[in-house]
Amino acid sequence: MKGVLNPPPKSLFHLYFLKERAGEETISMNMGRYNNEQREEEEEEVEDREVGDWKWKEEEYDESFSRSSRQLLIAKSNYMSRRRVNTTSQIAIFGANACPIESLDYEIVENELFKQDWRSRKKIQIFQYIVLKWAFALIVGLGTGLVGLVNNIAVENIAGFKLLLVTDLMEKEKYYMAFAAYAGCNVVLATAAAVLCAFISPAAAGSGIPEVKAYLNGIDAHSVLAPSTLFVKVFGAILGVSAGFVVGKEGPMVHTGACIASLLGQGGSRKYHLTWKWLRYFKNDRDRRDLITCGAAAGVAAAFRAPVGGVLFALEEAASWWRSALLWRTFFTTAIVAIVLRAFIEYCSTGKCGLFGQGGLIMYDVSSASVKYSGMDVLAVVLLGVIGGIFGSLYNYLIDKVLRIYSIINEKGPTFKVLLVVSIALLTSFCYYGLPWSATCIPCPTSKSVSCPGTEESENYKRFQCPSGHYNDLASLFLNTNDDAIRNLLSTSTGNEFRISSLFIFLGTVYFLGIVTYGIAIPSGLFIPVILAGASYGRLVGRLFKNVSKLDTGLFSLLGAASLLGGTMRMTVSLCVILLELTNDLLLLPLMMLVLLISKTVADNFNKGVYEQIVKLKGMPFMEAHAEPYMSNLVVRDVLLGPLITFSGVEKVGNILHALRCTGHNGFPVIDEPPLSDAPELCGLVLRSHLLVLLKGKVFSRDRILAGEEVLREIATFDFAKPGSGKGIKLEDLDIEEEEMDMFVDLHPITNASPYTVVETMSLAKAAILFRQLGLRHMCVVPRSQERPPIVGILTRHDFMPEHILGLYPDIKPHK
Amino acid sequence: MKGVLNPPPKSLFHLYFLKERAGEETISMNMGRYNNEQREEEEEEVEDREVGDWKWKEEEYDESFSRSSRQLLIAKSNYMSRRRVNTTSQIAIFGANACPIESLDYEIVENELFKQDWRSRKKIQIFQYIVLKWAFALIVGLGTGLVGLVNNIAVENIAGFKLLLVTDLMEKEKYYMAFAAYAGCNVVLATAAAVLCAFISPAAAGSGIPEVKAYLNGIDAHSVLAPSTLFVKVFGAILGVSAGFVVGKEGPMVHTGACIASLLGQGGSRKYHLTWKWLRYFKNDRDRRDLITCGAAAGVAAAFRAPVGGVLFALEEAASWWRSALLWRTFFTTAIVAIVLRAFIEYCSTGKCGLFGQGGLIMYDVSSASVKYSGMDVLAVVLLGVIGGIFGSLYNYLIDKVLRIYSIINEKGPTFKVLLVVSIALLTSFCYYGLPWSATCIPCPTSKSVSCPGTEESENYKRFQCPSGHYNDLASLFLNTNDDAIRNLLSTSTGNEFRISSLFIFLGTVYFLGIVTYGIAIPSGLFIPVILAGASYGRLVGRLFKNVSKLDTGLFSLLGAASLLGGTMRMTVSLCVILLELTNDLLLLPLMMLVLLISKTVADNFNKGVYEQIVKLKGMPFMEAHAEPYMSNLVVRDVLLGPLITFSGVEKVGNILHALRCTGHNGFPVIDEPPLSDAPELCGLVLRSHLLVLLKGKVFSRDRILAGEEVLREIATFDFAKPGSGKGIKLEDLDIEEEEMDMFVDLHPITNASPYTVVETMSLAKAAILFRQLGLRHMCVVPRSQERPPIVGILTRHDFMPEHILGLYPDIKPHK
Repeated sequence: MKGVLNPPPKSLFHLYFLKERAGEETISMNMGRYNNEQREEEEEEVEDREVGDWKWKEEEYDESFSRSSRQLLIAKSNYMSRRRVNTTSQIAIFGANACPIESLDYEIVENELFKQDWRSRKKIQIFQYIVLKWAFALIVGLGTGLVGLVNNIAVENIAGFKLLLVTDLMEKEKYYMAFAAYAGCNVVLATAAAVLCAFISPAAAGSGIPEVKAYLNGIDAHSVLAPSTLFVKVFGAILGVSAGFVVGKEGPMVHTGACIASLLGQGGSRKYHLTWKWLRYFKNDRDRRDLITCGAAAGVAAAFRAPVGGVLFALEEAASWWRSALLWRTFFTTAIVAIVLRAFIEYCSTGKCGLFGQGGLIMYDVSSASVKYSGMDVLAVVLLGVIGGIFGSLYNYLIDKVLRIYSIINEKGPTFKVLLVVSIALLTSFCYYGLPWSATCIPCPTSKSVSCPGTEESENYKRFQCPSGHYNDLASLFLNTNDDAIRNLLSTSTGNEFRISSLFIFLGTVYFLGIVTYGIAIPSGLFIPVILAGASYGRLVGRLFKNVSKLDTGLFSLLGAASLLGGTMRMTVSLCVILLELTNDLLLLPLMMLVLLISKTVADNFNKGVYEQIVKLKGMPFMEAHAEPYMSNLVVRDVLLGPLITFSGVEKVGNILHALRCTGHNGFPVIDEPPLSDAPELCGLVLRSHLLVLLKGKVFSRDRILAGEEVLREIATFDFAKPGSGKGIKLEDLDIEEEEMDMFVDLHPITNASPYTVVETMSLAKAAILFRQLGLRHMCVVPRSQERPPIVGILTRHDFMPEHILGLYPDIKPHK
Repeated sequence: MKGVLNPPPKSLFHLYFLKERAGEETISMNMGRYNNEQREEEEEEVEDREVGDWKWKEEEYDESFSRSSRQLLIAKSNYMSRRRVNTTSQIAIFGANACPIESLDYEIVENELFKQDWRSRKKIQIFQYIVLKWAFALIVGLGTGLVGLVNNIAVENIAGFKLLLVTDLMEKEKYYMAFAAYAGCNVVLATAAAVLCAFISPAAAGSGIPEVKAYLNGIDAHSVLAPSTLFVKVFGAILGVSAGFVVGKEGPMVHTGACIASLLGQGGSRKYHLTWKWLRYFKNDRDRRDLITCGAAAGVAAAFRAPVGGVLFALEEAASWWRSALLWRTFFTTAIVAIVLRAFIEYCSTGKCGLFGQGGLIMYDVSSASVKYSGMDVLAVVLLGVIGGIFGSLYNYLIDKVLRIYSIINEKGPTFKVLLVVSIALLTSFCYYGLPWSATCIPCPTSKSVSCPGTEESENYKRFQCPSGHYNDLASLFLNTNDDAIRNLLSTSTGNEFRISSLFIFLGTVYFLGIVTYGIAIPSGLFIPVILAGASYGRLVGRLFKNVSKLDTGLFSLLGAASLLGGTMRMTVSLCVILLELTNDLLLLPLMMLVLLISKTVADNFNKGVYEQIVKLKGMPFMEAHAEPYMSNLVVRDVLLGPLITFSGVEKVGNILHALRCTGHNGFPVIDEPPLSDAPELCGLVLRSHLLVLLKGKVFSRDRILAGEEVLREIATFDFAKPGSGKGIKLEDLDIEEEEMDMFVDLHPITNASPYTVVETMSLAKAAILFRQLGLRHMCVVPRSQERPPIVGILTRHDFMPEHILGLYPDIKPHK
């Protein structure tokens, strides 16, 4: 019922659509020409109808044709008025560039090859497979943990050096020099990050969580998990965070974890001829998906030092598909991350990591505060949650608007991307250095336990321009790394450290900068900006309620962060656990749960979670877990688009090539016909990728005979394994000679005899949920009546997209 | 791959089988007679073949018959040698009694009625439904939280009173009197619990987690969530725990939460005419399942004061089916529990709850211990994990053996059940009172911060028979409630409190008693016994490794508990979070994760988790998340058992009645035939329960005409709503007159036009996973060939049971 109230946001894709249309039409015209030539050759009369701007021509189903090997079935429609146009895009924006997308094959393709392979597997091979699975999880954990550490150490050292330089200059009262140094460092670091991002891997821009979420939902884009993306994500995140942007490293860490996992799952890089035979069992999307889920969990675990939170994040937000065995493997991966982090933090605490050193496994420890609260406090917290929810959804709304503007700028080319980054860097530098001047100096607290003004870069009390014995509270927040600013905001028993006006200025600044920073061409996480804004918001509320509530302002700050996170991300259990692991205060659990529930409930009334919104905006065909209400009124045959192209069990090579050329389909039903069987009989489904391998293997015969055995002998099972994104055989790689076009090839060995099916009368809503739950790419539609052919259509992800359905039935009101 | 190494344990059902067989054969004979009469009346010649001891006769498919309205299709088999006997049981042991079981209808039955109802729903009704869902979750949370509190307060007061009495008598050196008082109290309490359990609700015996797990997997038994079970579970658990048994309250709390949820989900009790119209939307198994999942989570949350742990427990262990919206609702429920607990603990801390009072939200706080560990400590912990895993799996093995013996005793009648409970109570009393005498007195530690010997009942240092200034360390463990014993074991900075010999004796005793106590006729949780044994084991290891490891013995104790829990329960994330919430020590997280992973891995090599094992032992047809390896070699048509009984779209009343009487089937395919359609056409599936309502409504017509509209007018949608377990219309309730037998009834309005289908060539493994993933009751098998009828069989839960498949194909080796 979630979707009932929100109109589907228009996709950013439309911005790119005009650009892409030109190319598409060329292809479509070429194909049209080819179509006509082929058809003339075959001397068959097929009516040609132009049906909008989509790629295929529609061909009428006709009796004589049905007996030919290539069948084109048009799904009968109850509604003749509908437009036969697939209006959903096959291109989405991954990172900051448009990129063609495909679906992933999560289904187990149970064809003869698979079965033979399965039967021939010995115990030792099964054991090897299991060991490998766990070894990979181990490597992902180790790798992500190490990247997390490197990131931490690098950021602390680079940003620390920068801040020390500024502090030194300020102590010498060279204020303009200090600003020049500060802004100069920021711009240089930002430019480096932007150049990496704009020129090497545009897909590395942004958080990365929407991309990983889309991948785990079954959407594949070539560059999104490529090694170059990994490289840029790691170094871009370090540079970006060091440059003082209001960005975090958790989104990039999740993406990094997923990239490491993907690299392993593809069995190394083929470019460098690093493929091993013992990696063969991992040559499928299913195992890769599991590994990438582990990688995403490891990313959160490494970014927040929150292993259990990482598992829950992967479960609640990232993954679209889950099983309990995966829970265990994810848990193992994050445990490894925790152990790596723990060991290195121990090592660094001896001072061997430069400026990095303070802090244990808990990033922002608030456990020292006493957690006593009464009814009045709970009321204050409820109010905090409600307002946090409203601000959270406003955050999402503004991010959406800003992203639309930025996409116009980013589209103009890499130089504009870099310029945008530089201007935001300058803006941030101005705010961060300029605003503290507006604060008046505060005398240091008399307590001896704190060093005030602080001498080290991460201390609570910054001197800035103040005389000795005083501190500037705004500088304590602005002239720090984001992590240290959050630590200061969450610090307990320092109720009066920050003035209300300072908190107000800081809140406004980070809220605004957080919104305008997301979407520029650097790796940028959303968690830290939201936590920063939320913590200052919470502390502000705590200060305002000081007279009525006895809860520590540090705890108010934590609850404020929770409320804003709940309002933007819309997670519950995982946020709760992540915040607990960040702050080590279990006693606050009931209040934290309350705040998260309230803010999510409030925010859900306005719009969707920020990651879902970005996924939609990028035009990715994401399958939702629930069906739209109007889908209950349609049945699957209502959305079937013709023509359906089927193959015979033993098919002419020319027909297959023709079908592969003319359509973009990735799955074709195989139907045995009377010479081979008593009546038309459904054999199953073949995949385009398998067909290409089979054609390349050239196990052809002159006559229409079953040659299954031969195929199994000639082509190794391994050749059919799915390669990594964009690395498969392409149609152009085939070298079929003219005489081979009339030969036959036996499709039975590669036909998946266990395709998932639905009856044509199944309601679209039920089918959509089934499709998503099983993570399918193709779903066969079987007829309800005995007199029709054994399969009447194939449903894919695009057939369930609201844009497609509402395009077919413009009269449907999307909201009930 | 988990199942590869373990033989499927034989079901306890076999013990009951002989008993049940007699009744079954009577039914089968009666039906046989009826069959023959009917057939003679209809003057049809059908071959009669006796096929073992199963209920149905098999009838040959024949052409003339196919045109009649009742079609009996026999699935073709590739293997003619197989025995056509369904060897799986339709009866399982719920609680301690045999009980007929059914499957639950989790599928949305999308028939005309449903669609009409859906269309007619106004916005206000949808809103009402959503509000109701959350209100129910709220009530479940409140209810379970309150039961948890009542349980806590009652146990603390009853057991506290008992222990105070014993301590008083011992101080007066009346040792025999003290024993008499101790044993007397225990026996009286135990007898009360046993009488409740044996005479009022046998289903309330045991942990309840296996039953809830089975329910959420789709297995329904009448009494398992009945109000009487709830009553016995609540009071039986209080009495049982107070009686000093080595049992916990968490399993019973989970069951209690589920019962409360079920009561709400059924819309109150029909017995007391408490049904409201506004509860109508909840009249289906799907919503009930969601609510019961929330109830299970609330149970864990209330038992351990661990709200996040509760959510994860429900997710990892209890539920077979999950979606992210449910995560949120579960989270809400446990948040309510946490808030209720928090409020009452605050209230009780002022001393208004009798002997209950100490302790906050954290049950066993160990956060004061410093968590510093080196490589040597990690090695010790690894060893701890390995041995813990072995002991955990041994625990499961022994519980299995003991349960088999007990089931023979329990079968003899309620009196024997009570006697068994009394003897175990006496045994426990002997051990608990007798064994401390073997310990020599230890001088109290000199530190002033502890009161030694303690004066209050829950103190660390018990005097027992010792002179003043000394304490008996064994008595500190034995003469306490289980909770306090665990608290003592986990207490930090008291490294020398317990001697190695004492820990050894305690470990042996609770390990042994824990095993022999589970299975007697009282509500008995497994968590606390395992934590008790594990904590003493961990502390023992900590003492032994004292010279090589600097880790606090209290933390060793916690890790020991984790290792034994991991070894028996085989959960990971949820155990980890529950233990964290119990002990409030996040810094121990990496070590805890390590221990859990190791112990689970080790134990998985020997047998299954304890709950899975009990589910199997009770003969419940539990669908596993993974398929057995041999299932990949079979396709679905290989396990189809004939005959398939189908109905025509407009069917003779007599035929329906006949089919309902002769078979136990709960779903029948509906096929429209040539008078009504051009060719045989699959309409969908009707449920037995809907047929019964339709027949009771008597919307019959003299001719074979479509009367759908009339049905929709005459019978309210609400009448078709699924009532609670065992409350539906029965065949005997129908009152069909002789003349009505030849009339027709239109089945279209109640036919689910969206049944889930698989092709007959789908591999059994894939179908099994699909079946489980969707939580189905019926799965239609469609033919691959056009010439066969549109449906060739129906798969149910029993068709996927290993016993059934291995019964059909005795040659299959279950292990690859």
